[in-house]
Parts: sequence; structure tokens; C-alpha cells
Amino acid sequence: MVVELGRVTDEPGRLTRTFLSPAMKRANRLVGGWMKDAGLTVRVDAVGNLIGRLEATGVGRTGPVRRGGAGRSALPKTLLLGSHLDTVRDAGRFDGPLGVLLPIVALGELRRRGVKLPFAVEVLGFSEEEGVRFASAYLGSKGYCGQLTAKDLAMRDADGITVGEAIARWNGLPVRRSLGEVGTSSRSKRVGVNALHLNATHQRGELLGYVEVHIEQGPVLEAKKLAVGVVSAIAGQSRFKLTWTGKAGHAGTTPMALRRDALAGAAEFISGVEAIARRTPGLVATVGLLTVSRGAANVIPGEVVHTLDVRHARDAVRRSVLRQIGRLATQVANRRGLVRRWQRTQENTAVACSPALTAQLARSVAAVQGKSPSLVSGAGHDGVVMAALCPVAMLFVRCRAGLSHHPDEYAAPKDFAVALAVLTDFVERLAKDYRG
Amino acid sequence: MVVELGRVTDEPGRLTRTFLSPAMKRANRLVGGWMKDAGLTVRVDAVGNLIGRLEATGVGRTGPVRRGGAGRSALPKTLLLGSHLDTVRDAGRFDGPLGVLLPIVALGELRRRGVKLPFAVEVLGFSEEEGVRFASAYLGSKGYCGQLTAKDLAMRDADGITVGEAIARWNGLPVRRSLGEVGTSSRSKRVGVNALHLNATHQRGELLGYVEVHIEQGPVLEAKKLAVGVVSAIAGQSRFKLTWTGKAGHAGTTPMALRRDALAGAAEFISGVEAIARRTPGLVATVGLLTVSRGAANVIPGEVVHTLDVRHARDAVRRSVLRQIGRLATQVANRRGLVRRWQRTQENTAVACSPALTAQLARSVAAVQGKSPSLVSGAGHDGVVMAALCPVAMLFVRCRAGLSHHPDEYAAPKDFAVALAVLTDFVERLAKDYRG
Repeated sequence: MVVELGRVTDEPGRLTRTFLSPAMKRANRLVGGWMKDAGLTVRVDAVGNLIGRLEATGVGRTGPVRRGGAGRSALPKTLLLGSHLDTVRDAGRFDGPLGVLLPIVALGELRRRGVKLPFAVEVLGFSEEEGVRFASAYLGSKGYCGQLTAKDLAMRDADGITVGEAIARWNGLPVRRSLGEVGTSSRSKRVGVNALHLNATHQRGELLGYVEVHIEQGPVLEAKKLAVGVVSAIAGQSRFKLTWTGKAGHAGTTPMALRRDALAGAAEFISGVEAIARRTPGLVATVGLLTVSRGAANVIPGEVVHTLDVRHARDAVRRSVLRQIGRLATQVANRRGLVRRWQRTQENTAVACSPALTAQLARSVAAVQGKSPSLVSGAGHDGVVMAALCPVAMLFVRCRAGLSHHPDEYAAPKDFAVALAVLTDFVERLAKDYRG
Repeated sequence: MVVELGRVTDEPGRLTRTFLSPAMKRANRLVGGWMKDAGLTVRVDAVGNLIGRLEATGVGRTGPVRRGGAGRSALPKTLLLGSHLDTVRDAGRFDGPLGVLLPIVALGELRRRGVKLPFAVEVLGFSEEEGVRFASAYLGSKGYCGQLTAKDLAMRDADGITVGEAIARWNGLPVRRSLGEVGTSSRSKRVGVNALHLNATHQRGELLGYVEVHIEQGPVLEAKKLAVGVVSAIAGQSRFKLTWTGKAGHAGTTPMALRRDALAGAAEFISGVEAIARRTPGLVATVGLLTVSRGAANVIPGEVVHTLDVRHARDAVRRSVLRQIGRLATQVANRRGLVRRWQRTQENTAVACSPALTAQLARSVAAVQGKSPSLVSGAGHDGVVMAALCPVAMLFVRCRAGLSHHPDEYAAPKDFAVALAVLTDFVERLAKDYRG
């Protein structure tokens, strides 16, 4: 399935599927077919999300479907399982699809074994998570949750097409203006998009939770020699642009003691940030880009600009570390006669996975694998959006060398067999323990 | 004089005078006029050097001109005083001209005061030191010393004109091929250039020495609050390109302990190099240019390339430091699992100034200024070439903020008045002490 889906692409010779593209339509048709084979009722929503629904099958192994007591919903609740079907450009085949395909296989297997589920299950294939077409991520899950804003709908792709126009076209609604034309949305089209009811499919109380299986995109499971692990949280993230200003000077004629070398200052800072990160469990800090302004081999650097990316699962830890890093920068600047400027370019708070749902998932991991390691996700996932709607849990699958967003991205079949066993066990136990 | 000469330029609105350019011809005419006013006999040699000669005036204050004893030259020796008249693009007015103009004023003053000199003096305005037109420095002093090689003569400027062709044209010799044409020199022209006798004006034994006054181009005299200082040596220099290779990775998902961050390694190395340089008196080490290959804010740097420039007045010290730096790089690379590659891009040995001539100059500095600081020149000067011909001494003049090669380059009149007094005193004492 992964291999077949991996051939569905917008770009010949490499795997690229972007929001509402022709390949996404073909991918929905292919995966929707597999969903039907597994007994799911399939639909595609207004923003292109593929949704396969299995209604509650009456009883679990242990008893009848509970319709809920006083103050509870009269309908059986719904468990959401899924991930995204879009990809980055020149992508691997696992990032996203694995979390859509495994639930389909799991539900098919439970059905074959005659396991009854006292809750409905929806398998979600989100239409957008990577942020490629509109340089903005989570359009699929936002649409599913009714979180798309007017600002989201007004964003334009490289051809000048807005999100709203793309959605209207996807749904076969009239789009007056020609492709590529740039301007504000026409009134009629806005009405058209509004007519699509971009509202949440579910209300908060109707959902048991959202569980996503995803490749780790990091090297931790590989280092631990384990196939899968549960995710405790999606890390909060701060990103900065830092500028160090010293004094450019002749590399041959300015003694060391009289220098105000911006790069030497930045180097000291980078080493200090690394030391802080190393002694703070779970923290990652990265200077990924650095430029010496007007640099030359024989000129003392007068200005250096670099990025700083800091992530941790707990916002309090991240903020405490940012204060340490801020003091470090001040010390380095003062001692060296440099001026340092900070510019915050991004700030995302951490999203904690649901402790209860994660514990249930960990129980299944322990049952299948023996050990159940807990990981923090340093990358963002649809769970960031879904957490506003319902409890979220995630299962990471080991991927080779931690590599993702690359054609060489690889997860071993024996590893996603483990993930499949965990997911099946998880759904089965959830059914067994279900009290409505 | 500095202001007037500073208006002689090839580029309207900014000061640029390059080898054998029209502005250089006008500069030679202007400065040559001032030389004549000071009583010098003026000529321009085949490579455009302006030479003002004052023959020995028979007796110093202390006695008759010595014609030399047994085994010595029968003619009075010649003292060379000078610097270069060419400039960088968008230059300041002091770098070069100061060392040509001050000797003219000094000789004029000695003449007015009736001081007789038992040796000849030549004031040299070299036609090329900055390496702008042919990206190769010292063409003027090399021509004066008869050191221009066939390789030098074959170098081409941005218009494809060779040094040989430029020299032929400057001397009014026929240049067959049209301007800008690229090819090997025609036979006739080579004969033409050869006919110019690009030989040394003087033999080794005929010269007392070469003394150059130059702005410091560094901040040491400003920091010492002194107008002038003597130069002990022109530093030797090693330049490298270093490449650090680690492993690119996701900034969010790769724990600190599993990283092989090329920039973190380079930062540690840069700090270590700075520490080594700081504890080695007189050594300067600079990383002036640094690039993160395929860098992005959310990617751990997999490759970093940077320059390294190391200079010291003593080659043995520089080489010892390079060995320390090499060991440091190996340690950093091994500890971090990085691969580091070195490429040597430049290597110049140090040029020591003449201890005897420098001591005589220092005596005059001490007499005029009280203190006589000794500096190392981190930048190259015509003395590098002249040292092959005769003893060399240099006098540095304080310049504002150590700035040079910039329109804001500035030396205060009171400072070059001190330099003038030193130079006058130096020539006068040399005459007094002269024993042939």
C-alpha cells in the first residue's frame, strides 16, 4: 500500500502531493478504495480530507453498546485515527501515509476477527499538513476542526490562487476569475466557499480522542533499538534572528586585545547555548544559519547574523532556558564590546498529549514490544490542531537514520508491523474497557 | 599637499589611482613639481615610478663626503625614502602618499637650513603597491628592483591588457594590437618592453637603506596615544580554508547527544583559536568568512566552510601556533565525530626590518616623541620587496580608528608633523654619523 500510494504524485519522477492537487484527488480515490474494502463508509470533506467512517458495531467483547448515562451524549462516541496524505516536495513515502494506512489495516483485521466496537471510528487522511502549497501548515486538520479563518482562506499560493478559490474549485463551485489572477476574492466566490459549511465535523464531547501513528523523523528509537514509542508532547518552539555588531577591522593590523570581533562573540554564544541545551534534559537548541556580513578572509567580522531555534516539551523549561540564553548573550556582548539584537520570528507553545489516552496507548506498546519509551516530538503534527478538539495521543515508528522529507526516508516493514499490532491492541482494549 | 593630491583620481567623486592610469600620470606631474621645488632632480622610470634624486651635497655638518675606503664603492651611497602613489578604489588620501610627501618636505627643510648630506637621497613614489589593476601587488617596487618576471609581465587586467602592454603604452612604445584584445604578446612589443631596461636602478651595495613612512592601518598607536612608532617586521602570514563536515538533521527531532553539528564544532574551534592567539604575544588569528552549507533555521548544520588567517612577525612562532591550531582542530573533530579538511590558500614568510636602520629611526622617534614604540606590520608594504635589495626601516603614523582603504581614512596634521620631525632628525643624524 505504501509503495502504491508513493507512486501517486504531482511531479513525475519524484513524490510530491500538495493541498487539493490532482494527485491528492487520485490519492483519496486509491486510499478511499482500501477504506471501503475494510468496511468503512468513505467521503471527502470540503477541504479535501478523506474520511472513512465505521459506525459502532453494537457491542464490544464485554458488553452492549452504552448509549451514555445522564448528562452524556446519547450517541456512541467516535475515535479518530489518522494522519495526512499530502507530502513535501520530493518526499519520502512514510511521513503521513503510514498513519492513514495502518488504521485501515487494523480496522480490517478487527472486522475479520469479528471484534465489535462500542464506538464509531473515523480514519482521517488530512489533505494538508506540510505547509508546502500555501506556506502554512495544518489546513486539512484546521478544516476538519472548523478552525479555518478568513485570513487562512485569503492566503495565496505561488500562482496567486487563494485557499478559498482552491477550495471552491476543488468542490466544483464557480470560480469567476481566471487561474493565476491576483486580487481580492469576488463576493460570489466567498459566498460559494461559505456555502461549503467549513464547520467542525464533530463537537468536543462526541470524540474519544485522536490517535496518530507517524514516523519519528528523529534518531531516538533507532538509538534505543526499539520499533515504536509513545509521544508525550509536541514541543513548544521559539525561533529568533540574532545580530551581533562589533567593529570590522584589518585582520593583520588589529591586535587581539583591541578587537570587537562579531564572529568570535557569536562563536562563544553558540558554544554556550550548546552547553545549556546539553545540560537541560529534553531541550534542543540549534543555530542553523549564520552569515558574516561583508565578510572577507582578511577582515575582522563587524557583523554576524544567525538564527536560533529552541524547543522543549514543557513551555516553562523552554522559557527558563531562553532567560539563561538571554543572560549569556548579554554577558558575551558586554565582555566583548558587542551589541546584540534579538528578533523573535516564531513562537509555538507546547502541545501536551492526553495523559490518559497516552497511558492507554503505552499499555498496548508495552504489551506488544515489552518496553514503552516516551518521546517528545520536536516536529509539529496534526495533533497540534486536533488537541483543541479532543484528547490526542501519538505513536512514533522508528525510521532509518532519523531521516524524513527525503526520498530515502524509510521505515522497515517489521517496524510498522509492530505499530499495527499496537494500534489493533489499543482499539481492542479501548473497546473492552469502554464505558461510554 | 595631501588634499591636493587626493583630488587626482581616475574616478570622479572618489579617489582611485591605479597602476599606469591617467591619474597616476597627473599625480607624478604634481608630486614631481613639489620634488623640483625641494631641489630634487625628477624622473619617471619605465614602470611609472616617480623618482626624485638629491645628489650628495658634499659635506655633512661633521665633515667631508667620504668616497669610501678600500673595498667600498667609490661613489657616495644613496638613501631611499618613499612609499606608493597608487591607491585602492574609493581610497583614503594618506595610505601611500604620506610616505612620498613627507620626505619631500623633510629634504626641502634640510636644504633651507643648509644641511649638507654626504649621501644621495632618492624620494620614491612607487607606481603600484595595492594590487588593484592586476590583482598583484608591488609592481612598482618590483620594477624599481628589477624583479619583474615574465610571469608578472603576462598578467592581464580586467580589459585583457597585460602588464607588458600597459608598460609599453605608458612609455609611448608601439603596441600593435588594439586595446582590449586578448592573446599572447606580439614579438615586437616584447622587444619594446625589453628595450626599456626593466633592471634595478641600484645595486645592493650602493644603498644605505629604504625608509618608508606609512599610516599604521591599525589601532595600536591610537590605543597607546602616540603619534608614531617604528616597525620591527612585516608579519608572515598563513591563510587557510577549513571545511567541517558533520551530519545535517532535523533541529526539532535530533537530541543534543545524537548530533554531529558542524557549526557547533566550528564555533568551538573559533573560540579555541582566539584563545591561542590571545595568549601568544604579537599573534593575530582571524576567521573572517564563514558559510553554513545548505543552512536553514530548522536544520542542524551538516557542513561549515570558513577561512583562517594567522600572522606573526616571527615565522617560527606562526608555525608553532599553526601546529597548536592543527591539534585543536583534530581534537574538536574527533570529540564531535566531525571530519575537518584544511586547504592552505596563502603563505608569506615574515620580513624583518633592519635592526640597525630601525634602531637609528627609533633614536629619532625617542628624540622627538619621548617614547619609541615598536610595532609589527600586519599588512604588507613595499618594504617586503625592497628588503631583498637593501636594509629596510618603517615609521608608522597613527590613523584614526585604525581605518584605511576607506574615504574616512584620516591622520591628524599634528601626527604627520611628528613624523616629519622624526624623518628630518633621522636624515640629519644619519648624515652626522655617516662614515661612508
